[in-house]
Amino acid sequence: MIKCNFNSGPAMLPNEVLKQAAEAVLNYKNGESILEISHRSNTYEEIINEAKALLKELCNLNDDFEILYLPGGASNLFAMIPLNFLSDKKYASFIDTGYWSKKIIAEANLVSHAKVVASSEFNNYTSIPELNEIDNKAEFLHITHNNTIEGTQFDEIPKTEIPLFVDMSSSLLSKEINYNQFDFIYASTHKNTGTAGCTIVFIKKHLLEKINPTCPSVFNFKKNIEANSIYSTPSVYAVYVSLLMLRWMEQQTLEKIFLQNKLKAELIYKTIDESKIFKNRVEKKYRSPTNIVFGCESKHQQSFIDFAAKQNIINIAGHRSVGAFRASIYNAMNLNCVEKLANAIIDFEKSQLD
Amino acid sequence: MIKCNFNSGPAMLPNEVLKQAAEAVLNYKNGESILEISHRSNTYEEIINEAKALLKELCNLNDDFEILYLPGGASNLFAMIPLNFLSDKKYASFIDTGYWSKKIIAEANLVSHAKVVASSEFNNYTSIPELNEIDNKAEFLHITHNNTIEGTQFDEIPKTEIPLFVDMSSSLLSKEINYNQFDFIYASTHKNTGTAGCTIVFIKKHLLEKINPTCPSVFNFKKNIEANSIYSTPSVYAVYVSLLMLRWMEQQTLEKIFLQNKLKAELIYKTIDESKIFKNRVEKKYRSPTNIVFGCESKHQQSFIDFAAKQNIINIAGHRSVGAFRASIYNAMNLNCVEKLANAIIDFEKSQLD
Repeated sequence: MIKCNFNSGPAMLPNEVLKQAAEAVLNYKNGESILEISHRSNTYEEIINEAKALLKELCNLNDDFEILYLPGGASNLFAMIPLNFLSDKKYASFIDTGYWSKKIIAEANLVSHAKVVASSEFNNYTSIPELNEIDNKAEFLHITHNNTIEGTQFDEIPKTEIPLFVDMSSSLLSKEINYNQFDFIYASTHKNTGTAGCTIVFIKKHLLEKINPTCPSVFNFKKNIEANSIYSTPSVYAVYVSLLMLRWMEQQTLEKIFLQNKLKAELIYKTIDESKIFKNRVEKKYRSPTNIVFGCESKHQQSFIDFAAKQNIINIAGHRSVGAFRASIYNAMNLNCVEKLANAIIDFEKSQLD
Repeated sequence: MIKCNFNSGPAMLPNEVLKQAAEAVLNYKNGESILEISHRSNTYEEIINEAKALLKELCNLNDDFEILYLPGGASNLFAMIPLNFLSDKKYASFIDTGYWSKKIIAEANLVSHAKVVASSEFNNYTSIPELNEIDNKAEFLHITHNNTIEGTQFDEIPKTEIPLFVDMSSSLLSKEINYNQFDFIYASTHKNTGTAGCTIVFIKKHLLEKINPTCPSVFNFKKNIEANSIYSTPSVYAVYVSLLMLRWMEQQTLEKIFLQNKLKAELIYKTIDESKIFKNRVEKKYRSPTNIVFGCESKHQQSFIDFAAKQNIINIAGHRSVGAFRASIYNAMNLNCVEKLANAIIDFEKSQLD
């Protein structure tokens, strides 16, 4: 029985991707397993170059960008960005939209001063704050585009004269967006673009001139570009799975995926808004289309999780810092599963109110 | 036809490991793929805890050690070690035995002073240098136990009063050794203990008190231990493949693997020493048992590679910085393949001298 896995990441993967990913473990090419190929071989170079070309095409990136696949999750970038661009003489500004933006702010404060120019902490991060001033002396402005834990997303991207950095771990390639307005984009692969193990980075070339000379080589973006993302041994298999996901997206077409994503989010939000038991606290225009956070009275919590599990709906518990429920509906999550969840919400409510 | 892959890493994996690794991609547990499980789930916790327990048992580690699986290859550690333990007031000492030790020396010099206390550069790294003095004011002494490119290995481990750090990327679990004499051990998984994507770290607890407070969190060993190696999103699949390799080693028994490794190395070195065409330049007592580097006149080079390829012997070209040939014979390389290579050396020689 196939499970509907609403985990915030690693996310569900399409069956055809899993099938190809398994075959490559047994025999990728000429009897060699994908787990045995050298990351310095032409075979691997073809994989990473195709993945980069597909990212460029799918995101409609202009030629100003370089593309990287780096080991580790977005937390690695929280440390690498300050190591590359900040110092006791160079600071950056940040919009604080919750758990993950606080993480990079803390890391920036270890090597420099992180200036928080807007925050929605005052309302428990149930909205995206207005940005009233931009500090043009800062090295960059950093935003967390989609907040997986709080269930919020920027409706409008701030306009800046300084470089704009964005964490898009949970929103890359989930809807139409102009990526060229950013200078630095990063996203871990285990949500929309693969499995756990690496992070995609788009970096505009003009930033490469600003890298600190004392930045450790393996964390230096320029050196990683020069090495085509194999400065450190890459997670070969995770990059290959990401390529399979990108090929799948191209084949499905983004048009179809984005439309389906819209329908999926609308259906769940509508069901919750009409519910007497469940509630979403986020201001409507800031609601995340990928991570839908909702709550209920504590007496219903465990029983709804059990009720859903009986229908093979799994991983809907909210983040440990927020509680309640969270439905993450990334690209590979089909409409069928989302309808199942919507029906479970309705049926559970009936069973409680009868 | 099965290939004999003598690559320096990623290395060959046993067929039974590949089979289980492929099955887990389709269905690891209850219909979920290993690529879809959360790294915050009990399912993953069981994987990493079993891998850690097996490492402790197989390496016979005492209770002073903590064990980590970190994203990226050993190059990540070249940067992380200085970030954790060095500063403008704290320096370390290093034994320079070639390409990879020079890499960590360069990284240490970015944040501090790397004091080279011995080097075999004078003889082109064809031996391991004698250590005449130990600087007890240094934070630690670092050695590269096995030098994959130069084909050398320490025959005796230096005795020190300061902490002893060791890169064992290509020698961990390849022969009997007392791991408890070291304070910090690291090894990327793509040689003896899995596929590309992560690095195993053993760190003695007393070192955790010495970590720089400004070390970025995701690179801070103490914070990674507290998070059981999921501070950053781990390479879930690479850790799982490593667990499969450790289980395979336990099942084969280390006794059998180590004996076979000895026979493999002896057979190739003997064949080369008896050859009129091929030559190994390394002083006998420093010869690496895992990476056998050998050369010949340039006129024979490509023809031997082609000759070997016809017998499914692949990836025997030497590192681009040294040239000639290299046969890496890690744990999963069977005696049959090594005999094939020895015979190829003999047969090639005959064909040339006839």
